[in-house]
Amino acid sequence: MKSPVVPETMRALVLTAYDGRPESLRVESRPVPRPTAGQVLVRVAAAPINPADLMFVRGQYGIRKPLPVVPGLEASGTVVAAGGVAGRLLVGRRVACVAPGEGDGLWAEYAAVPLGQCLPLRAHVSDEQGASLFINPFTAWVLMERAKEGGHAALAQTAAAGTMGRMLLALAKRRGVPMVNVVRRPEQVALLRDLGAEYVLSTHEPEFEERLRRVCHELKVSLAFDPVGGRLTGQLLHALPEGGSVTVYGSLSEQECRIAPSDLIFGRKRVDGFWLSEWHRQGFGPAQVKALMGVPSLVGQTLETPVRARLPLESAGEAVRIASADMTSGKVLFMPGAAS
Amino acid sequence: MKSPVVPETMRALVLTAYDGRPESLRVESRPVPRPTAGQVLVRVAAAPINPADLMFVRGQYGIRKPLPVVPGLEASGTVVAAGGVAGRLLVGRRVACVAPGEGDGLWAEYAAVPLGQCLPLRAHVSDEQGASLFINPFTAWVLMERAKEGGHAALAQTAAAGTMGRMLLALAKRRGVPMVNVVRRPEQVALLRDLGAEYVLSTHEPEFEERLRRVCHELKVSLAFDPVGGRLTGQLLHALPEGGSVTVYGSLSEQECRIAPSDLIFGRKRVDGFWLSEWHRQGFGPAQVKALMGVPSLVGQTLETPVRARLPLESAGEAVRIASADMTSGKVLFMPGAAS
Repeated sequence: MKSPVVPETMRALVLTAYDGRPESLRVESRPVPRPTAGQVLVRVAAAPINPADLMFVRGQYGIRKPLPVVPGLEASGTVVAAGGVAGRLLVGRRVACVAPGEGDGLWAEYAAVPLGQCLPLRAHVSDEQGASLFINPFTAWVLMERAKEGGHAALAQTAAAGTMGRMLLALAKRRGVPMVNVVRRPEQVALLRDLGAEYVLSTHEPEFEERLRRVCHELKVSLAFDPVGGRLTGQLLHALPEGGSVTVYGSLSEQECRIAPSDLIFGRKRVDGFWLSEWHRQGFGPAQVKALMGVPSLVGQTLETPVRARLPLESAGEAVRIASADMTSGKVLFMPGAAS
Repeated sequence: MKSPVVPETMRALVLTAYDGRPESLRVESRPVPRPTAGQVLVRVAAAPINPADLMFVRGQYGIRKPLPVVPGLEASGTVVAAGGVAGRLLVGRRVACVAPGEGDGLWAEYAAVPLGQCLPLRAHVSDEQGASLFINPFTAWVLMERAKEGGHAALAQTAAAGTMGRMLLALAKRRGVPMVNVVRRPEQVALLRDLGAEYVLSTHEPEFEERLRRVCHELKVSLAFDPVGGRLTGQLLHALPEGGSVTVYGSLSEQECRIAPSDLIFGRKRVDGFWLSEWHRQGFGPAQVKALMGVPSLVGQTLETPVRARLPLESAGEAVRIASADMTSGKVLFMPGAAS
């Protein structure tokens, strides 16, 4: 396939300080990166603002790269050049990709990405859906795999109306595992019921904690997923029957988890965490690879990512503000191909 | 052996409400219990006020008994009668004992105790040391066994100057495992150094958190024991290298554990709890029984319990107040044989 013409320079969002200030993230003109032997060059079509991206720009993520750097953990796009022979087969193909562990990420017109971090997109998956293929769907899938391996017959989760929450709910329904869903706004109860959720509780209901405890005991919920933190982690842990555990995979509340010692001591409960990158780093066994192969076919269907806003790189400040304010109504996407 | 004369009535501390008020715990005259077939009657010599007892009288313990009830989880004393044939061999013997799971405990002149919860005391162990034989030494021993089974080559702990802390330190030294000791009062640093502790940090030092982090990383501490809770649990977890865990076994601060989500997520760390009663309930395997057999010979020596005050049952209010105010300076013991 003939390579498209690649320009010398591009527009990219550049982070200059891990302080969360809007002026620390701005569009600059940069040389288009040259892919090394193991890399391909991707022309970015769409790149989401995930909670993990928000943590990254604030310096709160598990990885801190030397500054200045282009943020952006995942995206979709088209491969326009290859650094080595192996990548040539991908040229011209639409892919989903994850940023390399070192150097620039994907909030730019172009990015150099390791070959192994690209996955060709099937025809039914749009650029917009493909942009969020890795982080949320894989996290949801891996969390559900862990639940299965641990023999957990009933689950609970917080932030259930968010993108990840809906994916976890969809996977639980698919597997026939009961899921108790906790939301933080009353109007989200109806939204989740429309998605087929059977057990939905809002933290604003009277006697929320007692009702949560009752349903978790009735269903014998032994594992709960929590991307919120703060008091809610402790409420969730307290609601679980003896021996239950909470896996924290985000900190949307930006507050410390508050845990009653008595739940740990007398309730034999525990709190741990999950980070997809870490799971990835430990290496995949055959069972894990097999499981993950199922994910792309679900993307855009069972694992649908609602999209709320599509903005050019020039609107970074606004985009980050919208994304931070509300995670429920769908993803905010950067569309680097759209000039300001 | 001839049975001593047992009176019809006795003095006992009786709890009438789980509210922690001094007037809810008072001396009453009660019938001396009659041991059933599997029980012996113990004339109590000494009974400590453990943190677990304080939690029990406040209704915060893992077991709530119907009220009114005699509290007191452990004691030493002399067996003065047996309900069945099996117990007769123990009559006249000095024993350490644990309260039955149901009914009255040991803050009384006499108590009926299941045979299997009595351990004859060796001659070198005094009534005062024997009174604290079960809860602290066994908890310390079991925590150290778990550390060994988990392959943890270096440990940390909070409340290191307390009775349990000193026992854990002594066992760690015996096994040659480095232990980082955190205390909450500057004067406890010297106390622990005198006990042979190599690594001691006070929470009042400047840059406490950074120094704790540095020493935990240098020694590669992978497990920490925490009976305090509150902010300290989170500071401890944060100080550990990646993959570390904190086991909470008490809540001396009476505050919720505050845990940074990032330590759980990106640090692959976790928090769990330990309760000796639960471990007991799960049943002992041969390895566990073998390990526990080593404990009594260490009591009064490696596992010494410092004693600070000896009070009659009539001084319950004062005793509880002293015990609550300071756990470091030694145990407060009830001596039910001492009339007011």
